[in-house]
Amino acid sequence: MPQAVKDIPAVDFDKIRDDFPVLQQEMNGHPLVYLDNAASSQMPKKVADRIDHYHRYEHANVHRGIHTLSQKATDAYEEARWKVRDLINAENQHEIIYTTGTTDSLNLVVNSYGYKNLSEGDEIILTEMEHHANIVPWQMMAKETGAVIKVIPVTDSGDLDMEAYKALLNDRTKIVSVVHVSNALGTTNPVKEIAALAHEYDAVCVVDGAQAVPHKSIDVRDLDVDFYALSAHKMCGPTGFGILYGKKHLLDEMPPYRGGGDMIDKVSFEETTYNVVPFRFEAGTPPIAASIGFSAAIDYLSNIGMELIEEREYELVEYAVEKVSGIDGLRLIGKSDTRASVVSFVFDDIHASDIGTILDKRGIAVRTGHHCAQPILRRFEVPATTRASISFYNTKEDIDRLVDGIEYAKTFFE
Amino acid sequence: MPQAVKDIPAVDFDKIRDDFPVLQQEMNGHPLVYLDNAASSQMPKKVADRIDHYHRYEHANVHRGIHTLSQKATDAYEEARWKVRDLINAENQHEIIYTTGTTDSLNLVVNSYGYKNLSEGDEIILTEMEHHANIVPWQMMAKETGAVIKVIPVTDSGDLDMEAYKALLNDRTKIVSVVHVSNALGTTNPVKEIAALAHEYDAVCVVDGAQAVPHKSIDVRDLDVDFYALSAHKMCGPTGFGILYGKKHLLDEMPPYRGGGDMIDKVSFEETTYNVVPFRFEAGTPPIAASIGFSAAIDYLSNIGMELIEEREYELVEYAVEKVSGIDGLRLIGKSDTRASVVSFVFDDIHASDIGTILDKRGIAVRTGHHCAQPILRRFEVPATTRASISFYNTKEDIDRLVDGIEYAKTFFE
Repeated sequence: MPQAVKDIPAVDFDKIRDDFPVLQQEMNGHPLVYLDNAASSQMPKKVADRIDHYHRYEHANVHRGIHTLSQKATDAYEEARWKVRDLINAENQHEIIYTTGTTDSLNLVVNSYGYKNLSEGDEIILTEMEHHANIVPWQMMAKETGAVIKVIPVTDSGDLDMEAYKALLNDRTKIVSVVHVSNALGTTNPVKEIAALAHEYDAVCVVDGAQAVPHKSIDVRDLDVDFYALSAHKMCGPTGFGILYGKKHLLDEMPPYRGGGDMIDKVSFEETTYNVVPFRFEAGTPPIAASIGFSAAIDYLSNIGMELIEEREYELVEYAVEKVSGIDGLRLIGKSDTRASVVSFVFDDIHASDIGTILDKRGIAVRTGHHCAQPILRRFEVPATTRASISFYNTKEDIDRLVDGIEYAKTFFE
Repeated sequence: MPQAVKDIPAVDFDKIRDDFPVLQQEMNGHPLVYLDNAASSQMPKKVADRIDHYHRYEHANVHRGIHTLSQKATDAYEEARWKVRDLINAENQHEIIYTTGTTDSLNLVVNSYGYKNLSEGDEIILTEMEHHANIVPWQMMAKETGAVIKVIPVTDSGDLDMEAYKALLNDRTKIVSVVHVSNALGTTNPVKEIAALAHEYDAVCVVDGAQAVPHKSIDVRDLDVDFYALSAHKMCGPTGFGILYGKKHLLDEMPPYRGGGDMIDKVSFEETTYNVVPFRFEAGTPPIAASIGFSAAIDYLSNIGMELIEEREYELVEYAVEKVSGIDGLRLIGKSDTRASVVSFVFDDIHASDIGTILDKRGIAVRTGHHCAQPILRRFEVPATTRASISFYNTKEDIDRLVDGIEYAKTFFE
């Protein structure tokens, strides 16, 4: 359990639901129970308001404009760099690169850092529980460079086999890229330890933090990771925006990823020189409204406090695990003590999509399928799971509705 | 001049301004005159409303969800494929790839089609008037592959030297990549003729249409171009979204660009297979709200009619050229008869940024600088221009205010 929070005023989490118009709706004749937060979280009114005001009154292209509207848009657009710096305790706002999401962030690391620094026989360590976004880009790069991918296996509880990890590390290890919180199992990986071990071999540690930042306080300097990727839309912000944090000395040596406007210094057909970090990695007109919306989302989360959010979610997740564990025939996939947000389960004789469909008819939104993490499902010998993923705005009543819905679904297949 | 439009009901363009809240504002104590449309257009209320409603009531992640909210979000998100298909007269909605904008679209062509099909000594033909987004990615690729970039020169009037283009074409030519409408000069290039000539040498023709689609009716099949790139935010839609059109038979043979969720068929650490076109090129959670907003923007533009928009803008641009040409000492950069939207100019003894700053104090938003097109400015031996770029919601009064503002600015430097 997370440490008890002291000296922080209590938040009325039941009232917090009023901030989310989507949660006030009925779905298929029932009040919506939204338990698909690992796919995407919902947006509070304040964030929607901020984006809408920008669209109506403040829009202009950024960075290159001398007129007032453009300068104000630039200021608002740039704000997220400071806010993310503070949120994840980066040293410098120039370490905060704007991307279109975690997938884009990871592709940037692979295409810029990876291609530059890896060659034939160099080794990349991933884990068996990675999302496809942290597998496929490395595979594409490995195929071209001759680098080799090694995989940390996962134990029956859904934890990383750390001894196996230690055995994989060697002088050819150049990259260790791991998910912080598994979107399929809920496991929280010990990234501080993983990074420290990687550094013993001078490898860099890349972390897919998409499912971690929404649920707990993150300190990239304490974790001492080299790159950290996250998505705005999983933390009350809009889709189409994300962040790559990278240590400045690494970013400074990295070549550009995409070419275009804003990422250059001087362009001629004979020779082109590039802009400084972070702009070198940000070609073209960016998602301006999305950046501004993400700033508002960070403000919203920070006003509640990530510690309180973690505490609240821990309570809900514990409750959910206890309740669903009592359902006859239900098998949890992922039983780590470090679980955050995600409760993933199967029945031997009922397909996940059937469960999902019946729950949906009762207004309960969960995700079913492989969760873009086919290898870990193969590891547990299941083609699909039903996944309920919890946010701070969920309630115990939501969990009760889920459990009732599952019990009801079971009656169809008895 | 564009052909006169028959049988289309007249649109009251002065009333259309009421659709744009941003235009109702004062800027620095003056009613805003927004003439920075080539950088980004403004958003009508209907588009902002659509995005806002999505954010508040309809949001869920797309494609992988079995629940109602996700399925509805998917339907809304996918709509833009049909709408863009119809807007540019593509044959098939699968030829419409979602990107984050024109820059991303062009990088996709370079990284997927380019790397696969070009090798040492192969030739890429660009023009001297390209935006950096259609220069830098090709340069990055040419540096790695040994391909060679050739450049079509621009005449004193700001038109392409088509004889020089013909002389550049040869059996090593693999790519001809040109801007449809120059963002720095306003020139509309004869892309149908350019594509036909490229095809005589079995080269593919890539078109940067960012500044063309907002201003005229585009028919990619009539033009017979192979790839066509555009941005939502230049045509009343949101930032962070764009399109790459590509002929199906070319897209089908292209390898993926970014790796991640949604772009795969099956993933294992031994072997990964990829999804079909267009999804193969769309890794990760996409900009869902932006796609939905772009659909609304296309509806908005289509309701007016691109022919009427072209006619209206032609009239305003003609008026602007005539008026500014009367200003003593003002020199137009780009004098093509094919001009669309953009009026770019310099004074020998007043820096563009000084003009821009003084105009801004009078509430007039123009762009000053190199417009991400340094080579063409170098061609005209100027470091920067002042650029007024016109949209259908501008008025002759806006142009009059611009002209008065320039005359006023001049008094500072006499």
